[in-house]
Amino acid sequence: MQVYKAPIDDLRFVFEALDYPGRVAALADFADFDLDTVMEIAAQAGKFAAKELLPLNRIGDQQGVQWDPETKAVKTADGFPALLRKFRDNGFTGIAQPVEWGGGGGPHSLGLIFGELATSTNKSFSMCPGLTNGLIDALLAYGTDEQKQYYLPKLVTGEWSGTMCLTEPQCGTDLGLVATRAEPTADGDGYLLTGNKIWITFGEHDMTDNIVHLVLARLPDAPEGIRGISTFVVPKFLEDGTRNPIFCTGLEHKLGIHASPTCVMSLEGARGWLVGEPHRGMKSMFVMMNHARLTVGQEGIAYGEIAYQTALAFAKDRRQSRSLDPKKQEVDQKADNILVHPDVRRMLLNVKASTEAMRALLFHVAMHLDASHHHPDEAERVRSSDLVALLTPVVKAWTTERGFLNVSEAMQVMGGSGYTTDWSVEQYLRDSRIAMIYEGTNHIQALDLVGRKLPMGGGRLMKTFAAEVTSFIKANADTPAMGEFLGPLKAASKELSELTMQLAMKGMADPEEAGAVASNYLTVFGLTAGAYMMARMAAYALTREDRQARAKLKTARYYLHNILPETKSLIAIIGAGKAHMMDFDADEL
Amino acid sequence: MQVYKAPIDDLRFVFEALDYPGRVAALADFADFDLDTVMEIAAQAGKFAAKELLPLNRIGDQQGVQWDPETKAVKTADGFPALLRKFRDNGFTGIAQPVEWGGGGGPHSLGLIFGELATSTNKSFSMCPGLTNGLIDALLAYGTDEQKQYYLPKLVTGEWSGTMCLTEPQCGTDLGLVATRAEPTADGDGYLLTGNKIWITFGEHDMTDNIVHLVLARLPDAPEGIRGISTFVVPKFLEDGTRNPIFCTGLEHKLGIHASPTCVMSLEGARGWLVGEPHRGMKSMFVMMNHARLTVGQEGIAYGEIAYQTALAFAKDRRQSRSLDPKKQEVDQKADNILVHPDVRRMLLNVKASTEAMRALLFHVAMHLDASHHHPDEAERVRSSDLVALLTPVVKAWTTERGFLNVSEAMQVMGGSGYTTDWSVEQYLRDSRIAMIYEGTNHIQALDLVGRKLPMGGGRLMKTFAAEVTSFIKANADTPAMGEFLGPLKAASKELSELTMQLAMKGMADPEEAGAVASNYLTVFGLTAGAYMMARMAAYALTREDRQARAKLKTARYYLHNILPETKSLIAIIGAGKAHMMDFDADEL
Repeated sequence: MQVYKAPIDDLRFVFEALDYPGRVAALADFADFDLDTVMEIAAQAGKFAAKELLPLNRIGDQQGVQWDPETKAVKTADGFPALLRKFRDNGFTGIAQPVEWGGGGGPHSLGLIFGELATSTNKSFSMCPGLTNGLIDALLAYGTDEQKQYYLPKLVTGEWSGTMCLTEPQCGTDLGLVATRAEPTADGDGYLLTGNKIWITFGEHDMTDNIVHLVLARLPDAPEGIRGISTFVVPKFLEDGTRNPIFCTGLEHKLGIHASPTCVMSLEGARGWLVGEPHRGMKSMFVMMNHARLTVGQEGIAYGEIAYQTALAFAKDRRQSRSLDPKKQEVDQKADNILVHPDVRRMLLNVKASTEAMRALLFHVAMHLDASHHHPDEAERVRSSDLVALLTPVVKAWTTERGFLNVSEAMQVMGGSGYTTDWSVEQYLRDSRIAMIYEGTNHIQALDLVGRKLPMGGGRLMKTFAAEVTSFIKANADTPAMGEFLGPLKAASKELSELTMQLAMKGMADPEEAGAVASNYLTVFGLTAGAYMMARMAAYALTREDRQARAKLKTARYYLHNILPETKSLIAIIGAGKAHMMDFDADEL
Repeated sequence: MQVYKAPIDDLRFVFEALDYPGRVAALADFADFDLDTVMEIAAQAGKFAAKELLPLNRIGDQQGVQWDPETKAVKTADGFPALLRKFRDNGFTGIAQPVEWGGGGGPHSLGLIFGELATSTNKSFSMCPGLTNGLIDALLAYGTDEQKQYYLPKLVTGEWSGTMCLTEPQCGTDLGLVATRAEPTADGDGYLLTGNKIWITFGEHDMTDNIVHLVLARLPDAPEGIRGISTFVVPKFLEDGTRNPIFCTGLEHKLGIHASPTCVMSLEGARGWLVGEPHRGMKSMFVMMNHARLTVGQEGIAYGEIAYQTALAFAKDRRQSRSLDPKKQEVDQKADNILVHPDVRRMLLNVKASTEAMRALLFHVAMHLDASHHHPDEAERVRSSDLVALLTPVVKAWTTERGFLNVSEAMQVMGGSGYTTDWSVEQYLRDSRIAMIYEGTNHIQALDLVGRKLPMGGGRLMKTFAAEVTSFIKANADTPAMGEFLGPLKAASKELSELTMQLAMKGMADPEEAGAVASNYLTVFGLTAGAYMMARMAAYALTREDRQARAKLKTARYYLHNILPETKSLIAIIGAGKAHMMDFDADEL
């Protein structure tokens, strides 16, 4: 049994609490996307996801994808190509892309709503349009006019799909080791690329007429390492219909996301064209990756949401044992509903409260992303851009780890039923696990946060974030009902500042000290940012008196008292530094 | 690629550090099982596990089990029946069962070594002999002489296998709801049982000539609830060869342990005989379950071990990026080995240190289990029995949760490779997840600890445990080198005592308060007991000067400084009590 209803009510609450009307809808570029419009589109997308995407989710898991060694073709699961056509016909691809290229012209905030709904209901499927959006962003930023004219209309409408070809057998995290070569063609039109790529999502499939690859490779005069990498656009079919020799030579067998082909790709003199400057390929790749990292972070939210809904539906139906409080016992029943048991609530609320905090944080970043591109005031654009840069690794790593744990927690609510395939939670557990690994492992996010984002501009990004939190606290300091929410936030935010300071000191003296604690530091950051979101939502909830607002206040309390204290252990462990890791000789491990 | 070498060295270290020679080998009943003998048997079993069990582990996962709707027969994966015969021929079944019934007469401490080795290498397979041992324990404790004579020789040698038939569709955790009926037969020989059971592991299979079920059911005059349940022994084939009508009517499809059939069983007037007194069935079932709970707790250790070994082998081979410490960079290589990265070590050590602490705790309980049955002094038997009762739920729940997280952490070390099927870590993740659910969910263990074991005899069990820890601390207080280990242990053990006191007060006033914090309390207990084990092993390590002892001291430090502090958050969250869980109305969830 699959359970899902798009969380439009909570999304609307988040958008109201975080002032979408003032921050995004007020921007001239998004005049057509007021809150009601956005929520109406979201509601339609939610219905589509529940009705069309979800039913194919388990079929995709069971059938997987088939590779034909003769033709090198990849066949996706039954119904997937037709589903993409429907998805396209509804105008869901490119909803947040420029109107100029056939897109919907909507804000990223709206695009990411689509991301959550599609990921909850059919992650494997959603990776195809998801990656295409990343490629579009890269071409918009660094493509030539000709490249834009040729590729964007087809990509934005979803007629063609996109990929990211980074990883090679000898290099995953360390892209400086890329060995794929790009040689100038004899006819002067582009380059011929030769090499092997692995883990290429939707590298080959039967859902679109053409597949456009963004490929990292080295020009003949490239320096060694990361500063010698260039980016190329390599279509499966050339303009004249010729098959470009970039072939899928095998598929990976994986724990989950079975319906998403993970391809080994072989470039055998495939023709490609440079995107951006020579040797500066990491720049365009980062545009694509930053987009992807926010989308991947969303996976943790999406899986937590559907797993929560499933576990809650199970719990509401299941009777087992008696309430510990005699007043709550239903004596005319053989047993009480399991929602009377505190531990069942503890597990459900761990999922619910963290998912809601993470959702708010993601959309907070999304609204800053919109402002960073579209705000008329440059200072505002910079401020928003700083916050996006700072918070993207936090969103990617914190939410994906928590999301995986949340699915496991939801499974625990369901006991043995959760372990069977009957309710699909086991599929969510398998599918969600990859998000901690791809688009930069979670530790790479932590190094990005600690090693790049914190030092940037002499700590400007962190100061901007701290200032935002402080100004929120000040603005609400005179509201007595906010006291219970501001107290824990203030304490956590002070601890985060101190921790950041200590980390900066220690890390400057010894980078290994920073590396040793970076992952735990990122989690503390996430938990604290989540507390800020919960306090903001509480502030808004206090202006209302309905059931949803009451529930949000309770959820905020649960978060602040039963989740936020997780920072305490992490801070203690961070205090231990690198000492007890680095003193092992390799043969003592 | 599957990686595994039986951790005989660490097992020997644990057995020496915890004084197996003085505590178990010194007992008259185990005169034949001195440390060298036990370790030699363990080494042989380890070789068998790596050579015979491991190669069939993935085959079992891929093939699963097949049910024939016509014959109701279940076919296990290729090679499984032959493997059980080999396992038997080596005398591995019943190694810790009485010689009188054809067993090896070994201590539980030895039996549990077998448990770990078999679980690491082929959990699905090992469940068949594992459950049989539980049935043997129940028959030894409550069977009639005739039942013992008839069943035990076949079960102990592994010719027949055993099951536990508890769960029914309407009752899992709440066994008071059991509805299967047992009616006296017309001929006065036993009872006829009718009802449906679900989630019966190895309820039907083709690996043994007969299957003996221990079934919970109600006699006609049974009172309602848990005090009206009786236990029956129900063989698949009766003595005259007649097929007893207890049939498998379907199999569950599950996240993992695919090679272990999880059966829906239908009793259609199956003949069974009472084991133990009428309406006191939970007593014999608890004998079986306590055995099973220790074995299940071991799963977390076994999976952590093999996942660690796999991730370490991967890490030792993989080069990616540069050391943050220029002195450690291997400039003649394109990248450094990933063991230079602090975070890789952090992840590996989280697994290694917790696995070693949990292993020690399990064998500490096992040695107390041996003493509880075989010590000549009654006071010692009671003391040991108390500690077994107190620590069994801790071992079951703490280690299974941690074990699952450890597999996930090991997967993270391996990046994308861990997510593919190539290294089997993804199978370990799937297989290990069930251990948090079966044999009483982890929260049921927590309620057992908090609601039954803590109050027992006015807190006698906890006092016994605290006294053991205190006496260890006192005995080592004068060894200066022990200071760094005793400090954190003393602090943690004081915090646990205070927490226990607060819990007792709050729980007495309001049982829901106890229920709300029980799971987190159990984890604090586990982490503290693990610290005690690490300190004991450190004390022993200080008497030696070899590589293994040096590594153990480092591992103990890592545990005490980088894992034990996890209690801090849990204690803070426990402090929040039930308030923020119970104030939600059901429709606010």
